[in-house]
Amino acid sequence: MIPCDIIIKADHILTMNDGLDVIQNGAIAVMSGKIIALGGEDLILREYSAGKVIGGNGTVAFPGLVNAHTHSPMVYFRGLEDDLPLKVWLEEHIWPAEEKWLSPQFVSDAAELACIEMLKAGITAFCDMYFYGDEIARAVRKTGMRAVVCSGIVDFPGKTGGSADDYLKNAESFINNWKDDDFVTPGVAPHAPYTCSPETLIKSKTLADKYSLPLHLHLSETQWEVGEVKKRYGKTPVSLLEDIGVLDDRVIAAHCVWPTEQEIAILARRRVGVVHCMESNLKLASGIAPVVSMLKAGCRVSLGTDGAASNNDLDILSEMATAAKVHKAVSSDPTVLNARQAMLMATRVGAETLGLGGASGSLEAGKSADIVIADLKGPHMVPLYDIYSHIVYSMNRSDISTVIINGRVLMEDRRLTSADEAEIINRAASWGRKIRSDRQ
Amino acid sequence: MIPCDIIIKADHILTMNDGLDVIQNGAIAVMSGKIIALGGEDLILREYSAGKVIGGNGTVAFPGLVNAHTHSPMVYFRGLEDDLPLKVWLEEHIWPAEEKWLSPQFVSDAAELACIEMLKAGITAFCDMYFYGDEIARAVRKTGMRAVVCSGIVDFPGKTGGSADDYLKNAESFINNWKDDDFVTPGVAPHAPYTCSPETLIKSKTLADKYSLPLHLHLSETQWEVGEVKKRYGKTPVSLLEDIGVLDDRVIAAHCVWPTEQEIAILARRRVGVVHCMESNLKLASGIAPVVSMLKAGCRVSLGTDGAASNNDLDILSEMATAAKVHKAVSSDPTVLNARQAMLMATRVGAETLGLGGASGSLEAGKSADIVIADLKGPHMVPLYDIYSHIVYSMNRSDISTVIINGRVLMEDRRLTSADEAEIINRAASWGRKIRSDRQ
Repeated sequence: MIPCDIIIKADHILTMNDGLDVIQNGAIAVMSGKIIALGGEDLILREYSAGKVIGGNGTVAFPGLVNAHTHSPMVYFRGLEDDLPLKVWLEEHIWPAEEKWLSPQFVSDAAELACIEMLKAGITAFCDMYFYGDEIARAVRKTGMRAVVCSGIVDFPGKTGGSADDYLKNAESFINNWKDDDFVTPGVAPHAPYTCSPETLIKSKTLADKYSLPLHLHLSETQWEVGEVKKRYGKTPVSLLEDIGVLDDRVIAAHCVWPTEQEIAILARRRVGVVHCMESNLKLASGIAPVVSMLKAGCRVSLGTDGAASNNDLDILSEMATAAKVHKAVSSDPTVLNARQAMLMATRVGAETLGLGGASGSLEAGKSADIVIADLKGPHMVPLYDIYSHIVYSMNRSDISTVIINGRVLMEDRRLTSADEAEIINRAASWGRKIRSDRQ
Repeated sequence: MIPCDIIIKADHILTMNDGLDVIQNGAIAVMSGKIIALGGEDLILREYSAGKVIGGNGTVAFPGLVNAHTHSPMVYFRGLEDDLPLKVWLEEHIWPAEEKWLSPQFVSDAAELACIEMLKAGITAFCDMYFYGDEIARAVRKTGMRAVVCSGIVDFPGKTGGSADDYLKNAESFINNWKDDDFVTPGVAPHAPYTCSPETLIKSKTLADKYSLPLHLHLSETQWEVGEVKKRYGKTPVSLLEDIGVLDDRVIAAHCVWPTEQEIAILARRRVGVVHCMESNLKLASGIAPVVSMLKAGCRVSLGTDGAASNNDLDILSEMATAAKVHKAVSSDPTVLNARQAMLMATRVGAETLGLGGASGSLEAGKSADIVIADLKGPHMVPLYDIYSHIVYSMNRSDISTVIINGRVLMEDRRLTSADEAEIINRAASWGRKIRSDRQ
């Protein structure tokens, strides 16, 4: 018998490997943070022994979900204002609230709430764009998650800088603080082609390239953006980025709602990580991204929640369901974006987009043990005919029972082991009261 | 002190009355199944006393949700096949499965599963269309729910009849069995204008009118249906029904995805209960109903899940979120279908559609105590700025903690009191194994 740290048992193990193998009545042996073996339960239990055995009958195990675009601290503005035109919402509510409240303490507290919200929804890795990166990175480490934390860059003054060069300087010092961390990948986040000049975009990419790190930005999110960029530079956003040479496979581009056909071909050719944020795009009425066309063109498309101010939660299971359904209707074709494809987008493709594909995103021997176990016993989960369909179309975030990152059990039976949930929630409620009373 | 049965306390009570009053730190006194008083907690506790006090800090109370269109027993075909063209899905999978498996026992067991799935999602009333109505009605009574159970009618032979007249005869005997029940309203359900001739539709309406009961049908669900009806009768579906005189305020019309502008005006004028089934319409690629136009025209629009075979769950909270978001994007207007409107559709308008508006659908003194209590303490539920937005955009069915129908506590702290959840789920799993093995 080979001793290991944990054995996970499940009725179904979705490996999300190249062959999309599903192991029935399977088990996974985990040792020193890594998957050392997986296969039929009988086989694994014959060869491996562990002090801790989790999962069991009525469960499914799959790779941790990846939220490839969010602004984690914005959970504190969840539902601050809704159902408003984008311009009013941003300029009269969100930006003034950020101007008023942003501080290292705010960001630190808010990011911690975001991390536990995501953990409880089976998300093991996320890509963030905000300010005060050190605070976010510390929240990631504190809660045991993985993240690409990208330092925000804009051309106008804000709480953390007076000019693009200030933000770039902040970004580089943030990179130096975290570049050797095992769980946090620092990144550079020029906000968007309408808030960053081509010069700033190029400087941001140069900085990211200097350290071989991701560049994260909003791209072609609204028709307004497309018009504005065209007015300023004579070209549409993706073409602009292509022409100034910033597109490659380390670029993580959120939204991509309005690319032209030519631009879709560019995104595919450059292997850009396109992040589809279905629910945010719907709620802000930004539009419906041409995901089916992008997938057909060979684009790498993952899923993101965007910030909780515009969603209003951090729930990739729900993004899968919404995306899989909406694209069927807008394509008039119920066969597009099927359950397997949605799961791939939310797991392996997400991990690849974040640059974590080598270590994560699928359950295979040698990869990191970033594993979610979900319960199949609720009344909305029976009978079961197809496990992918069940996860995408029927499962709820509260069905996620156990979350493991790098072999560490961060949630078991919905109880967090790495964070004091009650305290984090009380802190959030207390910030909420302050913010609310200030607005009245 | 006035004695009563139950006092419910909550941080927020959404009355969903005409003024959409929200009571902060409120309480509701319930006696003999009815709300006898509601108001500020201090006030209610000063005047009323009860052996049972539920709810409390960190909760919200609102009227039970209404699922205005479903085929409850189809939960047993949940995820049987997905991501297929409608014709293949129906003709090669769903209809053969029904042909093979339908029986009184199947329907009875399946309807019970549907009822507890709905209860656990905060649904207190639903409108059903299927066969073996007695079995469904008994499941409704057994689990303590309310429902309009409509007896299916088609022009072709099936398990429960050889002709439309057979189904009509079944429907009338079903009506006579249940017409005096306090919780089950029997109804007549001619399937659709493409499966029922005008003659059958008229006979169905005559039967419903004889007992002043609802008529429930599918209407203008797909472009195919519109084309087919036009080919056969020279008019589109809603116009056909108008011309044969079956439309009025006791008609519950599911889907209405493809009405013309003129037909929208007819639906409004006749006060037809239009049931929007967003997730099913998306998943089957039927299209996106012109809900914003229908609301603008004054149509009464409620929400339905459709059967779980095409959704794949019975979750009105999720229908609210999806509908509120999708219509913003397709209208290019983030102000449409706001959170309050979505909540109205899911509660009061739903109850009115089912003919239960006098007794249910809002929390007001004298109405039946059909009340849901939900938890606001999850990490995805803080901070809180707007309670409607929270319920529509952030809440999850698992946040529903307590469900009360007619003053009877059917779920408390997510534990069902009226049904043996484990047994119902085991039975469902066992049927699932039989159905699955038969298909292999």
